[in-house]
Amino acid sequence: MKTVNRRQILEVFDADSLTLLQKEGFIAHSQQRVQQPPVQHFLFAQAGGDCCVKSAWLEGDEQFVIKVSTGFYRNPAQGLASNQGLMMAFSAQTGEPQTLLLDEGWLTALRTALAGRIAAELCAPPNIQAIGIIGCGMQARLQLQQLKAVTACREAWLWGRSEPALRAFRRDAEAEGFRVQVTQDAAQLAAHCQLIVTTTPSREPILQAADIRPGTHITAVGADADGKQELATNLVAKADVIVVDALSQCSQYGEIATAYRQGLLASTPIVELGAALRQGGKARSDPQQITLADLTGLAIQDAQIVKGILAVL
Amino acid sequence: MKTVNRRQILEVFDADSLTLLQKEGFIAHSQQRVQQPPVQHFLFAQAGGDCCVKSAWLEGDEQFVIKVSTGFYRNPAQGLASNQGLMMAFSAQTGEPQTLLLDEGWLTALRTALAGRIAAELCAPPNIQAIGIIGCGMQARLQLQQLKAVTACREAWLWGRSEPALRAFRRDAEAEGFRVQVTQDAAQLAAHCQLIVTTTPSREPILQAADIRPGTHITAVGADADGKQELATNLVAKADVIVVDALSQCSQYGEIATAYRQGLLASTPIVELGAALRQGGKARSDPQQITLADLTGLAIQDAQIVKGILAVL
Repeated sequence: MKTVNRRQILEVFDADSLTLLQKEGFIAHSQQRVQQPPVQHFLFAQAGGDCCVKSAWLEGDEQFVIKVSTGFYRNPAQGLASNQGLMMAFSAQTGEPQTLLLDEGWLTALRTALAGRIAAELCAPPNIQAIGIIGCGMQARLQLQQLKAVTACREAWLWGRSEPALRAFRRDAEAEGFRVQVTQDAAQLAAHCQLIVTTTPSREPILQAADIRPGTHITAVGADADGKQELATNLVAKADVIVVDALSQCSQYGEIATAYRQGLLASTPIVELGAALRQGGKARSDPQQITLADLTGLAIQDAQIVKGILAVL
Repeated sequence: MKTVNRRQILEVFDADSLTLLQKEGFIAHSQQRVQQPPVQHFLFAQAGGDCCVKSAWLEGDEQFVIKVSTGFYRNPAQGLASNQGLMMAFSAQTGEPQTLLLDEGWLTALRTALAGRIAAELCAPPNIQAIGIIGCGMQARLQLQQLKAVTACREAWLWGRSEPALRAFRRDAEAEGFRVQVTQDAAQLAAHCQLIVTTTPSREPILQAADIRPGTHITAVGADADGKQELATNLVAKADVIVVDALSQCSQYGEIATAYRQGLLASTPIVELGAALRQGGKARSDPQQITLADLTGLAIQDAQIVKGILAVL
């Protein structure tokens, strides 16, 4: 079994071609051409950790992919990254293990950022005066970086709970070419930004319904398990259009889960990302609409990013 | 991530201590002390293959284990083994990948044989004049080998469809110290044997109800997916006591699934292996009973065998 490490992956990845593969994956998923068994979840309560196993095969592909990703939120105190993980490619012809990608969770972070980029392409309003990023981690950085391909806007508002983390993110965002404002008041960020990405593992809402103005798009990527929520339930209910990666996941444990369960979305159009891509055009019909993309992460995204990396390695 | 290969595993494994760990695993499973998310299944129809992903954590253990096993039944024509696979241990404290066991499916085969050994300990009648093995593959050999720890009987009847495979198995069984009879008539085998293990991926019954005499125990390990069946449905219905590794699996896709669905087992005592081990004693209350153990394979067996191997590596 060939092993590829994070450094080797970072040397070869091409975000633009990987984005095309991600779109193909979402479309195949919406056409039921993907075998994607239910996600396996573990909870390690004592260690403050969780793990999920996501597996997918795009029917006809030469390989299928299994991904293990973990989040242990006390790791940074020991000098370890919170998110760990690996991906594996197996032959769909013989079952043989082919490649082990020791990406340390980086490919998951990247494919999530690429999904954010795709969601923004579909949903963002035509005029973006500033991009707002909620959270200061690796995902926050990758989302901001990938949005450069979607909009010419280089004004960014960054929100975080920790001032040192916010300062560090500011430096990185400036190095990416953004003019940066930082704030610890999420309402202030929302007042200035038309394209907002929330990237935290928060269990209590950071953005409220009253914070969001007409003509705003929000991509929420933090909520990927029951109990996580970055947006107030009445903010979710206020969206004019909702895009989800998979309704089966988002309605259960995504950002929209609470509003969905409470029946608050009965009259909100909810469209899956793959179906929206197949239709073409924009998910919003009016620049003044509030749109929301809820991304919980699909195994086909992992399978497609592995395919893209292995093609150039 | 440390890598261990099949040769290294074969050098260190100790079947007796691994059997104790397997028993602990079954007991923990019966006490709901194991996190074991639903098995992920793939079907590769064009290549005649399948894959399953099994994951388990015995709560409190330092590691959790994820196993990928594949079966591609046209592989032998290319000089490849049908069964491939690997197991991985991750830290339950930090999520870090720790050890990759490139066992090529061997650990799955071994833990299955150990489960057969445990089932025989629980169920076999007191007098065994001969052991009968249905099937001529690696699992058939391992089951016969492991039964040496359960009974002093060294008479074996072997059944297979292929004469060359049967001759090869005969040689191996004789080398293990058995006096061997071979047959292509499963009824003849059943007429002589009180302890029978069926190890084939058959989709049509090999043993019929009329073949089995009172005082026989059968362990069926071949059926692990919908449609596989080695025993006639009326033979399953004839059992006085049934032991299963997990009723949730066996009732859906194990050897007993058809009889269970047809309501033929409504008055048959069905006990899970872990619960039977906790109770102590034998699963049969009378030497003349017909007992059946249906083993579909649990992720906790994988987690426990990895624990045992890593403890001595």
